[in-house]
Amino acid sequence: MTRKQYNDQVALALEYYAKASIVLTDEEKNNVEIADFGKNNLDEIGLQLVTYINTERVCAKEMVLLPGQTCPEHKHIPTGTMQGKEETFRCRYGEVYLYVEGEKNVAEIKGKIPPTDVTVFHEIVLKPGEQYTIMPETLHWFQAGKDGAVISEFSTRSTDETDIFTDSTIVRETKIED
Amino acid sequence: MTRKQYNDQVALALEYYAKASIVLTDEEKNNVEIADFGKNNLDEIGLQLVTYINTERVCAKEMVLLPGQTCPEHKHIPTGTMQGKEETFRCRYGEVYLYVEGEKNVAEIKGKIPPTDVTVFHEIVLKPGEQYTIMPETLHWFQAGKDGAVISEFSTRSTDETDIFTDSTIVRETKIED
Repeated sequence: MTRKQYNDQVALALEYYAKASIVLTDEEKNNVEIADFGKNNLDEIGLQLVTYINTERVCAKEMVLLPGQTCPEHKHIPTGTMQGKEETFRCRYGEVYLYVEGEKNVAEIKGKIPPTDVTVFHEIVLKPGEQYTIMPETLHWFQAGKDGAVISEFSTRSTDETDIFTDSTIVRETKIED
Repeated sequence: MTRKQYNDQVALALEYYAKASIVLTDEEKNNVEIADFGKNNLDEIGLQLVTYINTERVCAKEMVLLPGQTCPEHKHIPTGTMQGKEETFRCRYGEVYLYVEGEKNVAEIKGKIPPTDVTVFHEIVLKPGEQYTIMPETLHWFQAGKDGAVISEFSTRSTDETDIFTDSTIVRETKIED
């Protein structure tokens, strides 16, 4: 994406953090990560995030999904001697449609099928104050409802670079062109 | 403490979560933990907390300190085969005076000396959006400023029962008398 696209997307993300009354430092505001997953389609596929901490043992992030935006299906595999990442999503604002491995539990899912491969449809709907824990090596994807969403993530160490995406065209690292 | 004292303290804590715009479920509101550390002096010594998650690997809590209230000095030691707890405090509301092992770095500390043993005085002041990571086996105590404080904690597994307090009269488990 271009520097302007990046800056515009950060400005949008900051609006959602403000809606959720999440206070960020100036340094954090200047370092919001925009993941476009190599799709160049941020309206539908992407994730905005601030990583508070990521040590050998603990990680915490504050994530934003724009209205209807999807974080593509993936799983966290073991890295080095470490088990895969275990993560808890806690909805702070908006509504989140989370899909994980397991029996399809609704006749019709609330989310819309995104323009990226998805294969799991066990639905969990998270409203503010609600949370769900995803154990290692569990396929999952998630999408915001019409008002967008802010989601806190509490997890073990994050090693995004080893995540396995179902859609083989996905590139995890975002490239910003100056 | 009596059931009435417990209920009153929970009501107070909920006011601070609301000030910080932290959304809790009804179940969480009904299960706020009040730690009185066996001191029967909640105005000066205590901690109010909601534990979001505490698995073998990850723990997240939302803590409230009332104005001037102190969480007494302690450290997290190894438990079983696990290293001691590593924890990051992130201030969401108010101001926190955190004291950890290390050289005294201010002529006069901002906190007031609490009615419980404290031996470490390396001061870190946290305002909303600011955070600090406490590594295992590091003595620490913390106190809210005049407006109270709401603090998110991101950590490895919490095993409060093995915490070592400097003040030997402290009892970690709160007893509520019906």
